[in-house]
Amino acid sequence: MKRTILLLITAIAAVTAVQAQAPERTANQDKYYVRRATHFDDLPVHHRDIIMLGNSLTDGAEWNELLGDPNVKNRGIIGDIIQGLYERMEPILKGQPRKIFILSGVNDVSHGVDGDSIGRAMEKLIVLIKERCPRTEIYLQSMLPFNTDVQMWKLLKDREQVVIDGNRAMEEAAKRQGVTWINLYPLFVDKNGKLREDLTNDGLHLLGPGYLIWRDAIIKYVKSSNKHMRPHNYPASPRRHFMPHHKRPRHFKH
Amino acid sequence: MKRTILLLITAIAAVTAVQAQAPERTANQDKYYVRRATHFDDLPVHHRDIIMLGNSLTDGAEWNELLGDPNVKNRGIIGDIIQGLYERMEPILKGQPRKIFILSGVNDVSHGVDGDSIGRAMEKLIVLIKERCPRTEIYLQSMLPFNTDVQMWKLLKDREQVVIDGNRAMEEAAKRQGVTWINLYPLFVDKNGKLREDLTNDGLHLLGPGYLIWRDAIIKYVKSSNKHMRPHNYPASPRRHFMPHHKRPRHFKH
Repeated sequence: MKRTILLLITAIAAVTAVQAQAPERTANQDKYYVRRATHFDDLPVHHRDIIMLGNSLTDGAEWNELLGDPNVKNRGIIGDIIQGLYERMEPILKGQPRKIFILSGVNDVSHGVDGDSIGRAMEKLIVLIKERCPRTEIYLQSMLPFNTDVQMWKLLKDREQVVIDGNRAMEEAAKRQGVTWINLYPLFVDKNGKLREDLTNDGLHLLGPGYLIWRDAIIKYVKSSNKHMRPHNYPASPRRHFMPHHKRPRHFKH
Repeated sequence: MKRTILLLITAIAAVTAVQAQAPERTANQDKYYVRRATHFDDLPVHHRDIIMLGNSLTDGAEWNELLGDPNVKNRGIIGDIIQGLYERMEPILKGQPRKIFILSGVNDVSHGVDGDSIGRAMEKLIVLIKERCPRTEIYLQSMLPFNTDVQMWKLLKDREQVVIDGNRAMEEAAKRQGVTWINLYPLFVDKNGKLREDLTNDGLHLLGPGYLIWRDAIIKYVKSSNKHMRPHNYPASPRRHFMPHHKRPRHFKH
């Protein structure tokens, strides 16, 4: 009973938080959001886990099956924005997972956010993860293109360039923060700068074959051991404190 | 390329099939349906697997995590009806899974179907599974109650009795077919015959704590070994052919 009350408070807090961030969301999207977030609150994350974090694109796949790894956990929620990920990180962060794969941003684009703001929001999320989980490997994935010829998404109309700008800003943030950047965009775009028609039925979400392309693009990062795939500028271990030789105490062993 | 064309044909066939069965579905529901079905086509099922088959209630949970078993696979699709399950069984049946847990029916109720028809549709699905996968254990779960006080679902208004009738018809079908009946309804209903308000935020779908109740109700069936939990009237092995004593040939050993 105590647990139920706690979860209801969490749910109410989540609704309030989401409404504050994203007034454009419909009531039913918010309700789906809260249901999924309260479900995630009940599912512990462990230090061997690989977290797939994102919006509807992540939500839609059975990642543990697709990647053939029982430690892979889906933490996607339809309609989520980058700030939404930030707000619901707690149950993930406290598990200190081995890896986190992030894909988000297109709902920010549909909310009228510009590319630089998307980059800044994502960098804030990465900084949070690095601070709380210094041993977690972070893989930042680019936004995919969309295609309003397949289906008209009014809030995305003529905003193709924002995806390109946002991806550039996120790539720069990834470099600054020393996390791995995975550019999925070229794998999904056609010659007109739109999401390939054979991979979607609504111009935004992926059919089965689209998920196979995504899987093939990330499988090496999923399978990699920590040591082998660590990005260049990500410290391998806490650096040994440097002390000039003449100041070292006698018992100091190199 | 060949694979892509095949999948597109499957997708088109699925759209056509779904439209024929459920004209009430919106275009976007159909599109979600096809995306998820084409994704499932790409995910093989094995003989050790435990399949969670159903509609949005099944779709919404991370069952492998919730049940702590990597062999558990989510095969739920938002908005699905019993005939929809029937039409998309092929990739599941050919894997000869160890167990299948079914929960469906409330979308049939919202489509104006009566309780007896729900029972008949479910029995047809069970017969299909038994014919194609004679060693698969089938667990039929009752429909949950809904609550139109929390949110008005016009197509469910005043149809509480259809859920009760449908559950009775499905329970009878389960008995006839010798499969295990799991009555979830009493665990979720309040004293007014509605879905408990503390377990939902829209009167139809479950918050995190609702999934914990569901898990606790089925975990013993998930964990059971084949032999121990086989239902009473489900043959343990092909029956030895009975032959009257005086007709037995001399080499016949009892």
